[in-house]
Amino acid sequence: MDYNAPEFFDLMDYTANADHDVIDMVSGNPDWGSPPGVSEGLHEYADLGGDEFQYPPTEGLLELRETVAEEHGVSTDRIVITVGGGEANYLAMALGIERWPGTDALLTDPVYPYYPGKIQMLGGTDRYVRAEVDGRLDPDAVRARMTDETALVVVNSPNNPTGAVYGESTMSELVDIVEEYDALLLSDEAYDHFDFSGRFTSALEYDSDHVVVTKSFSKTLAITGFRVGYGVFPSAALADAARDRHMLTLTAGVRPSQHAVLYALRSTAPEYHEQSRELLAERFETFTEALDAMGAEHTSPDGGFYIMARFDGYQGSTENVKRLIDEAGVACMPGDGFGDSRTDWLRFALMTPRIEEAADRLAAFF
Amino acid sequence: MDYNAPEFFDLMDYTANADHDVIDMVSGNPDWGSPPGVSEGLHEYADLGGDEFQYPPTEGLLELRETVAEEHGVSTDRIVITVGGGEANYLAMALGIERWPGTDALLTDPVYPYYPGKIQMLGGTDRYVRAEVDGRLDPDAVRARMTDETALVVVNSPNNPTGAVYGESTMSELVDIVEEYDALLLSDEAYDHFDFSGRFTSALEYDSDHVVVTKSFSKTLAITGFRVGYGVFPSAALADAARDRHMLTLTAGVRPSQHAVLYALRSTAPEYHEQSRELLAERFETFTEALDAMGAEHTSPDGGFYIMARFDGYQGSTENVKRLIDEAGVACMPGDGFGDSRTDWLRFALMTPRIEEAADRLAAFF
Repeated sequence: MDYNAPEFFDLMDYTANADHDVIDMVSGNPDWGSPPGVSEGLHEYADLGGDEFQYPPTEGLLELRETVAEEHGVSTDRIVITVGGGEANYLAMALGIERWPGTDALLTDPVYPYYPGKIQMLGGTDRYVRAEVDGRLDPDAVRARMTDETALVVVNSPNNPTGAVYGESTMSELVDIVEEYDALLLSDEAYDHFDFSGRFTSALEYDSDHVVVTKSFSKTLAITGFRVGYGVFPSAALADAARDRHMLTLTAGVRPSQHAVLYALRSTAPEYHEQSRELLAERFETFTEALDAMGAEHTSPDGGFYIMARFDGYQGSTENVKRLIDEAGVACMPGDGFGDSRTDWLRFALMTPRIEEAADRLAAFF
Repeated sequence: MDYNAPEFFDLMDYTANADHDVIDMVSGNPDWGSPPGVSEGLHEYADLGGDEFQYPPTEGLLELRETVAEEHGVSTDRIVITVGGGEANYLAMALGIERWPGTDALLTDPVYPYYPGKIQMLGGTDRYVRAEVDGRLDPDAVRARMTDETALVVVNSPNNPTGAVYGESTMSELVDIVEEYDALLLSDEAYDHFDFSGRFTSALEYDSDHVVVTKSFSKTLAITGFRVGYGVFPSAALADAARDRHMLTLTAGVRPSQHAVLYALRSTAPEYHEQSRELLAERFETFTEALDAMGAEHTSPDGGFYIMARFDGYQGSTENVKRLIDEAGVACMPGDGFGDSRTDWLRFALMTPRIEEAADRLAAFF
């Protein structure tokens, strides 16, 4: 089997190895710092030692599962704590491919680059439905692509890379479609705390046994290196199936990180999240204004960390991204890494305080 | 696809939920405490925050990879740091099944219960070669079971569950066999620091492009909950292939844990490991003497954490283990969880200071 790994890390290496100043707009690592509860929780854990340093329950620390179950109003036995949102998606995709009829996964184009590789690794076939130019997903277009072979529909809202946020009508129609075609909807909600529109709708709002929702603390608490996420599965039985794969893949999740996350959830005021969101919204405003001034086409993100832009005559290729790194001192991702529909677009992550400077450099270059 | 998860966790739950005192001889969680460097390293990390809380390189922290590469005398680009030894085995098995001819994996009977489920999950077929009653593996028996379909041979030394340690001649013959049949040898050496015989031989001592070695800090530093292990792959190209699957499965490993492990490796004196080993050797002596006094047949471990024992007329079933928990107050694992050859044996983990008390309870029960 051959499957492609995303090129994020290659471009991050290329950026890190540049011998001149480069503004990093590649990575999705929050730069605004974690709430103090993360450090405090890790300090607390470090002193426990002994039994507390040993395997957590495979499905995750009970108190952490209870906390997130209560937040979402679901039963605790539907929650499996995972090694980041990445593992939660892997488990959910495996469930769809193994337990639902067919082995096709319907992804969006543009697509988060890990999805196709995961699907292929799991023996599934990746198929695509095009999003609108502004990133919105038309449920009728999804319906038109459904077949008896479609085991899985994977959506991501707020979206990476477009910044689109799917509202209530889109989500409810998606749930209707997977129920009608007996497929599993995987709703990846890693960016759920970063909705600027107020329109974000979790797939958990629909009481459907055809929906898995994945979440992550990586972005929410600015701890992408801690590796804590979770899946909310349709039933205890399907959560058990996901837990079994989790167990066979890596035995158990990460106890120090789960402990720190639990501590942080209990001690972090809502203001932390509001401030992160406001900071990010300001950055989007600054950057989109600059793109408008350059005459570049761009998405108008309602949420998430990313924006896509198109500069006339400048293809969204790895070669062109390296030229931008070398000549403009701005690193971003090539649009062709996100599917066929955005080969002349670039994706910018706004995880840097140097947005104005980056915009000035891009304006000078183009 | 259906695959079975091991029943460790079920029996640990049963033990934990008992309303009377039970001595836990199920789990492989070291009870002697971690070296202080683990806590110190975690405290140091907790204060770093910011960028240091974000994704580590997918293949693991460079300094940690360099440290283990130097220890083994291999190049750093052959090392991938994983989420525990469990993930390292998953990656190595996938490599064997995907990249070598055939899809059969030859496992030993008795077998570490995670192996069959992992192989089945990866689309391989688990086949078995019987170990001797004392746990030794006869290379001629392995050779007799090799076919063109054998992609993978999986061994574990020091062995879970028998305690056997494979010496130089066994390991060199195993390497010869996989080279002759063009298969991959996966040598799981998670218990390499717990050899009482001085005979332990790492598969890394043979310069073969048909060998993957997996290691773990879980037992060595008594941190099963931290999830740090690694694979030493035959080449940089195969390490890259393993890293790609690692990336697609869970994006990246665990930075706080890797930081703490690196700190501990730099600050832990050899005496820590000697003392753990001596403590464990004493426990084995105590327990085997007691088993002899009871007239029970048993393995005579040269290493590892476990011993298998057979009590005449008492089958090694889950039902009988639960009876032992209920009536004797000793929890162990049923032999039938380790394959077909040990259905009338029980496995005892010696991760408790209450060895004499457990032996007394068993003597009273039988």
